[in-house]
Amino acid sequence: MSELYRASTTAPVNIAVIKYWGKRDPKLNLPTNSSLSVTLSQSDLRTHTTASCSPNNKSGDSLILNGESQDVSGARTQACFRELRALRKELEDSKSDLPKLSTFPLKIVSENNFPTAAGLASSAAGFAALVRAIANLYELPSSPTDLSKIARQGSGSACRSLFGGYVGWEQGSKDDGSDSVAFQVAPASHWPNMRAVILVVSAAKKDVSSTSGMQTTVATSSLFASRASETVPKRMQEMQKAIQDKDFEAFGKISMMDSNSFHATCLDTYPPIFYLNDVSRAAIKIVESINASAGKIIAAYTFDAGPNAVVYYLEENEKDVAGVFKAVLGEKEGWAGERGQAVEANSAALDKAIADAGIAVGALEEGISRIILTGVGEGPVKTEESLIDEKGEPTS
Amino acid sequence: MSELYRASTTAPVNIAVIKYWGKRDPKLNLPTNSSLSVTLSQSDLRTHTTASCSPNNKSGDSLILNGESQDVSGARTQACFRELRALRKELEDSKSDLPKLSTFPLKIVSENNFPTAAGLASSAAGFAALVRAIANLYELPSSPTDLSKIARQGSGSACRSLFGGYVGWEQGSKDDGSDSVAFQVAPASHWPNMRAVILVVSAAKKDVSSTSGMQTTVATSSLFASRASETVPKRMQEMQKAIQDKDFEAFGKISMMDSNSFHATCLDTYPPIFYLNDVSRAAIKIVESINASAGKIIAAYTFDAGPNAVVYYLEENEKDVAGVFKAVLGEKEGWAGERGQAVEANSAALDKAIADAGIAVGALEEGISRIILTGVGEGPVKTEESLIDEKGEPTS
Repeated sequence: MSELYRASTTAPVNIAVIKYWGKRDPKLNLPTNSSLSVTLSQSDLRTHTTASCSPNNKSGDSLILNGESQDVSGARTQACFRELRALRKELEDSKSDLPKLSTFPLKIVSENNFPTAAGLASSAAGFAALVRAIANLYELPSSPTDLSKIARQGSGSACRSLFGGYVGWEQGSKDDGSDSVAFQVAPASHWPNMRAVILVVSAAKKDVSSTSGMQTTVATSSLFASRASETVPKRMQEMQKAIQDKDFEAFGKISMMDSNSFHATCLDTYPPIFYLNDVSRAAIKIVESINASAGKIIAAYTFDAGPNAVVYYLEENEKDVAGVFKAVLGEKEGWAGERGQAVEANSAALDKAIADAGIAVGALEEGISRIILTGVGEGPVKTEESLIDEKGEPTS
Repeated sequence: MSELYRASTTAPVNIAVIKYWGKRDPKLNLPTNSSLSVTLSQSDLRTHTTASCSPNNKSGDSLILNGESQDVSGARTQACFRELRALRKELEDSKSDLPKLSTFPLKIVSENNFPTAAGLASSAAGFAALVRAIANLYELPSSPTDLSKIARQGSGSACRSLFGGYVGWEQGSKDDGSDSVAFQVAPASHWPNMRAVILVVSAAKKDVSSTSGMQTTVATSSLFASRASETVPKRMQEMQKAIQDKDFEAFGKISMMDSNSFHATCLDTYPPIFYLNDVSRAAIKIVESINASAGKIIAAYTFDAGPNAVVYYLEENEKDVAGVFKAVLGEKEGWAGERGQAVEANSAALDKAIADAGIAVGALEEGISRIILTGVGEGPVKTEESLIDEKGEPTS
């Protein structure tokens, strides 16, 4: 096929330690408070996306994710396409010899390297990869910060996946969202020994699920306003300092408190939204037991809009954190890789945990289906590995 | 035995619909916010207390609860004894022919008509009965409002058990607590058809328990201040109006929102305090399903510092509320009484609940050990039935 243009990237998942919840503008995904996340390693969790376009494509814009055709007519995807095309158009207008890619339909193919069933928020990596891949295809000179404004319109937290390491998302105050952008607090190399173990709650334990709705929280929670206006701004400052100082105790305490604060506003929503269940509570108990044993905070839980626990810790404490989870959950899927095999099951700490919170240990064994071991990682990476072949067809 | 003085009373349990959580003065039990409760019928839940004294008693103050000797040296019990004796002393000083009861040791015997294992906050009924019985013994002219200041020092929520019906507790602002008193919003006769079904969570399901601590919430929750200063004052007004107007929809909505708000501040405590578990969440789901079926709020859940659900409803909706719980939980203890037998199991509503929230139905069946059917009731009642015989000994 002549005149086929292609570009590929991978993009990471990020897990917030200061949570995004609540929109001041639902259309532009402008948040009611700033947020901050850790970008996770793409060796473990990433979306790989190839964007292509060709004047010969007569079938309109399309997106295939994990082998399945997706609807691209939604306002969020359309906003990303429209904004990226407008930037390409500007380039084309300024340099008349450039091919008019902005006028060609887009064909996008995307794959995650982690099971959808894991219930990890994949939309952040997905929209970051989509935006980055099209920006590469269009050879846009835009910075990650500029692109973050576009990715944000796809999925709020996607804006943070355009950077590696420790990433903030400034809420901004302008109506057009031009100052609501992601920024890098510190690169992964600044504090490279940050690790995370993700405890994936089994489908059977995801009972009594709630329909989520951050806008319902904004509308009905009487406690939400003070979280957005007072609690989070203070924690954003403290968290950035903790990261600059590589102060895990502060990092961990703020992470845990902010996760609890977010879930508290969910519970204060009417009708209440519950994401944490008895398995999540068991994970919290084990983390509390690990920290009590250590006499300081060496493990920090955080929960997104679901029951899965993400536990951050530093590599030097692997035996006392991941090792305890391996002692409890060693039979579960996820320890097979090189990293997982290297983790030594810590039975002494487990004995302590059983003595402290034996019921929690049982609840965790029963309720967790798999674990994912990972750590802080880099932002999107351009790749030559294309998911679209030279004929313009998906490679698999 | 010559010169034995005795007086007996019963006192009710109350379950708050605007929750008390947080003290501005831990010694005097002065709260950070006002609260409001429904006094429950003493046919179902009551403490029966006899207070006695005699100059021949040489063994000091004593208290026997459910046949077991209790420690009376604690500051809370001592405060009640001291304040009541001071009031008696005033009387004795003004009328010199009165026997000097204030100088005699007190012997108190108390019994609950409900199992302690039910995990119902019995301290409210207990201290209300203790204060009321001693006030009767001393023939104090004090009003229930005056006595509420004393009972409050025994256990905060005890002050509300000195009245029947719908009862408020004004937080007050004075340092000495003299304006932190209970008051009757409306007698039981004003809105007599208010019913409640209490779902008692089985001990096995009370896992991963937390050490409570309302003072930890005050100290660490960033959301608590706005609950105390803004949310509750507004709801106190709305709730009093709902009761005056016998507006169950408003009563129910505020009750559910305030329960959620209270538990949200517990979750926002560091370390977090969890009282609701997956069984509690299942009860919430069933109530939501009942209300969805009715197209309006006919059932309202509320949770104290534990997983047990209290569900308020009006007698005319018994089939659609208690009837659904009977359909799910008909095999459990608690339906044997006249009231319980009269409840018709509502299988149609149950089918709907199973379709809506089948997992919740299963969780409830598995996690609830017994139910208690009750309704709004009267305040303390003087009784001739004495738990202390004429020789000054416990009758059983």
